[in-house]
Amino acid sequence: MNIAVIGGSKCSEKYYKTAKAVGELIAKEGWTLICGGGPGVMEAACSGAKKKKGLTVGILPSYDGHEANSYLDVKIPTGLGFIRNTLVVRAADYLIAIDGKYGTLSEIGFALSEGKIVVGIDTWDIKGIIKTKTAKDAIGEIKRYVKQEGN
Amino acid sequence: MNIAVIGGSKCSEKYYKTAKAVGELIAKEGWTLICGGGPGVMEAACSGAKKKKGLTVGILPSYDGHEANSYLDVKIPTGLGFIRNTLVVRAADYLIAIDGKYGTLSEIGFALSEGKIVVGIDTWDIKGIIKTKTAKDAIGEIKRYVKQEGN
Amino acid sequence: MNIAVIGGSKCSEKYYKTAKAVGELIAKEGWTLICGGGPGVMEAACSGAKKKKGLTVGILPSYDGHEANSYLDVKIPTGLGFIRNTLVVRAADYLIAIDGKYGTLSEIGFALSEGKIVVGIDTWDIKGIIKTKTAKDAIGEIKRYVKQEGN
Amino acid sequence: MNIAVIGGSKCSEKYYKTAKAVGELIAKEGWTLICGGGPGVMEAACSGAKKKKGLTVGILPSYDGHEANSYLDVKIPTGLGFIRNTLVVRAADYLIAIDGKYGTLSEIGFALSEGKIVVGIDTWDIKGIIKTKTAKDAIGEIKRYVKQEGN
Repeated sequence: MNIAVIGGSKCSEKYYKTAKAVGELIAKEGWTLICGGGPGVMEAACSGAKKKKGLTVGILPSYDGHEANSYLDVKIPTGLGFIRNTLVVRAADYLIAIDGKYGTLSEIGFALSEGKIVVGIDTWDIKGIIKTKTAKDAIGEIKRYVKQEGN
Repeated sequence: MNIAVIGGSKCSEKYYKTAKAVGELIAKEGWTLICGGGPGVMEAACSGAKKKKGLTVGILPSYDGHEANSYLDVKIPTGLGFIRNTLVVRAADYLIAIDGKYGTLSEIGFALSEGKIVVGIDTWDIKGIIKTKTAKDAIGEIKRYVKQEGN
Repeated sequence: MNIAVIGGSKCSEKYYKTAKAVGELIAKEGWTLICGGGPGVMEAACSGAKKKKGLTVGILPSYDGHEANSYLDVKIPTGLGFIRNTLVVRAADYLIAIDGKYGTLSEIGFALSEGKIVVGIDTWDIKGIIKTKTAKDAIGEIKRYVKQEGN
Repeated sequence: MNIAVIGGSKCSEKYYKTAKAVGELIAKEGWTLICGGGPGVMEAACSGAKKKKGLTVGILPSYDGHEANSYLDVKIPTGLGFIRNTLVVRAADYLIAIDGKYGTLSEIGFALSEGKIVVGIDTWDIKGIIKTKTAKDAIGEIKRYVKQEGN
């Protein structure tokens, strides 16, 4: 199962820690971590996932993937710029949004328009997001939906 | 110059009228109207533009364009589903958002992440949107930016 | 109905004339001309279509559309680079290929994989292309298919 | 480094074996195998790569990835239909084409138009493809280019 972690390419230490914890828990569940492949929240989540020997995938905006963070098992350069955001969403079974700016907003809007579950930690205040406070709670919400939907 | 009108495929009579007025004014300026090609706000804007002999373009989600409204000069079926939203944004010099749901939100997020100007009429309350109340004011804002940016 | 004219961004005078004639005939039929928006075969076809007051649409590779030829009614910048080729194909009801290099080959392969009719004039020698010699014959072939398919 | 294996979703036993051998050699080099994720040549290459404990990635045409073969570590559903072919190419450092029909042709055309190296085994006869006969030779060609280009 693919879990996307979305959030800004710049983030505070606080959200870096949160994203890392999310990545660790995704890996512990045996899920694949999908993200935009860059720095910030994406890097943090990947570093957490790799710490727990998870699988990490970055769908990158550039043609050559130069912006890839150091914790990606699979780098998918696209040359699409921010349009790659839509591929992160399409690839995801569930999404976790942490903090984030307009790029994250575009992913939230796109995910919700495609009927996907978005769990949020201190992210945009958009109706439809499942709001949680901690990495553990975010993973708990996803597990609840997985059980419910029988994935 | 391309002006995108974005908004829900379902809308109240009130927003239908607003979108139609926006379409009329876009056509009167000699601008091309770009939209997602469907019903609701998109149809309203196109009907207004055609009333004033403007040029209307719909970038459509389906492969066959069956969802096209009746006021399109150019139909661009894409088979991309909601990913076509990103092409509406990329094609636009400026955007006007009217009401709208998650699809519109994805377009707003994507447009702002790409540094484009989004003028909003009763749409999502997102920082960065230029908020206006009427069709006339929305067009006025765009004219102000056009002058400023020398387009 | 949308007819795509595909072919190289560089072409000899001979193919420029052929493409221009194709554009004229497309316009005379009342069809919309879709192309990649650039120079060469694309420009030639658009110039022909505009001579006959047809409607021309360019789906452009760049973000800003700087490579647009001078005969486009509608410019759709995409920022997709050559991926925009797939959108030219998706937007087209039928395609006419004239000469062309690898970009044209990608469009031919993509169009045939999506089951679309490709009429060719001195283009890649690919099984499945309807081969013709002149602009008039190419349009004739399309009219034959339109009649047959009831479009 | 990402190596894409492209080829038909249906293939003879002969090409299945060739593709499997290619997949094995890709994995032995420590390269990541990128493909369209489906059956036929794609499945064969993935099965070979997994036999040698390689990493396999499928960029899938559907929204839900139902067409995924059984040997994928990473499934990337896109909902793009054949447009996903362009993402397979963009993600690839080098490509190996085996047999294949129009989908493969679109990938070859697109890869060559983007200036990428395509090694071919009994595939479309297109100028620009590096033609080889065996899996071993195909990998040898790529290693030669990697050395040359200093990747």
